[in-house]
Amino acid sequence: MLAAAAELFTAHGYTATSTRAVAERAGLRQASLYHYFDGKEAILAALLEGTVRPSLEIARELVRRTGTAAEARLWALCHSDVLLLCGGPHNPGALYLLPEAQTERFAVFQQVRAELKAAYGELLTDTEPGAALAAEELALRTDLVFGLTESVILIRRADPARDPRVLAAATADAALRVAGVPQRSVARQRREGQRLLAAWR
Amino acid sequence: MLAAAAELFTAHGYTATSTRAVAERAGLRQASLYHYFDGKEAILAALLEGTVRPSLEIARELVRRTGTAAEARLWALCHSDVLLLCGGPHNPGALYLLPEAQTERFAVFQQVRAELKAAYGELLTDTEPGAALAAEELALRTDLVFGLTESVILIRRADPARDPRVLAAATADAALRVAGVPQRSVARQRREGQRLLAAWR
Repeated sequence: MLAAAAELFTAHGYTATSTRAVAERAGLRQASLYHYFDGKEAILAALLEGTVRPSLEIARELVRRTGTAAEARLWALCHSDVLLLCGGPHNPGALYLLPEAQTERFAVFQQVRAELKAAYGELLTDTEPGAALAAEELALRTDLVFGLTESVILIRRADPARDPRVLAAATADAALRVAGVPQRSVARQRREGQRLLAAWR
Repeated sequence: MLAAAAELFTAHGYTATSTRAVAERAGLRQASLYHYFDGKEAILAALLEGTVRPSLEIARELVRRTGTAAEARLWALCHSDVLLLCGGPHNPGALYLLPEAQTERFAVFQQVRAELKAAYGELLTDTEPGAALAAEELALRTDLVFGLTESVILIRRADPARDPRVLAAATADAALRVAGVPQRSVARQRREGQRLLAAWR
């Protein structure tokens, strides 16, 4: 049902899609849809939360793993986040810019997204270049690293055939560069980040 | 009229906004609107093109200025582009993710945006780190630098009160880092890029 909604919302628009159309696409009767969701807004909220909540769980785990360099953990977070954003057949991140997503009804999504961004900030603070930044500069750098990660939504929109794994690794490398990690350390931190993610699965 | 449309499309949604509402907001009769635009799609097309065409003109000029380091020209392009995207009171870049913007009717916008991205690619190729990259790697790096620049749309959406000048300078610095410019050269290339833009005005 969520996949059907993601497809219709991103292909035809949120306003133009009815709950009846979502139910039909999912092969259900409209009444069955209302058994799970109390309306179109609830479906949009579930879709939006699905683009951030799994990443927040990974982020919290990575923030705790202080035995590994923060650079490698930031790489791992960015990599996982890009895979999530580019994971399904549709591009639910494209719904972030809907005017509806800014309203009070989607406060939970906004809150989870803010917590995810804060976790990026925590990891960034613990990197060597991040530790040297003043608070304001660090906040700006966090916005840019987080923005770079989310920009895969726009990249994928323009070119849907991209290989998510290639994009994820390149974006995570770029995130370390934006963080200020010297060129010569990026490859080493990437290997460390990959090792961390591999041990996890 | 375009400002009225940008406000209504980004605040209430494209589908939910009628040409009558745009005309009313602009203080015109609907008939006068149709004197300038042959419908809602034409208004959206004009808004979308307005977010890329001025940057393409600057990009073309910068590609020609081979007397200045490509790093500084890339900085200047990214800086100008962020100022354009964050320029008006609304955020018309938020309309990029509308399903409608992907359709054939908006082919001119897509074409101008592709040309702008190609100009980023040309400048990137002429930088010292860019010249060392294989074609595929360079294309990926171009997507990331371009994506980083456009990510200010998402950053601004989450936090509309941001100072565009601070964001523009920080994003242009970050673009050089993603390009692979060493940390020690970023400040010098930024000064050179600022000089280039100042001489222009």
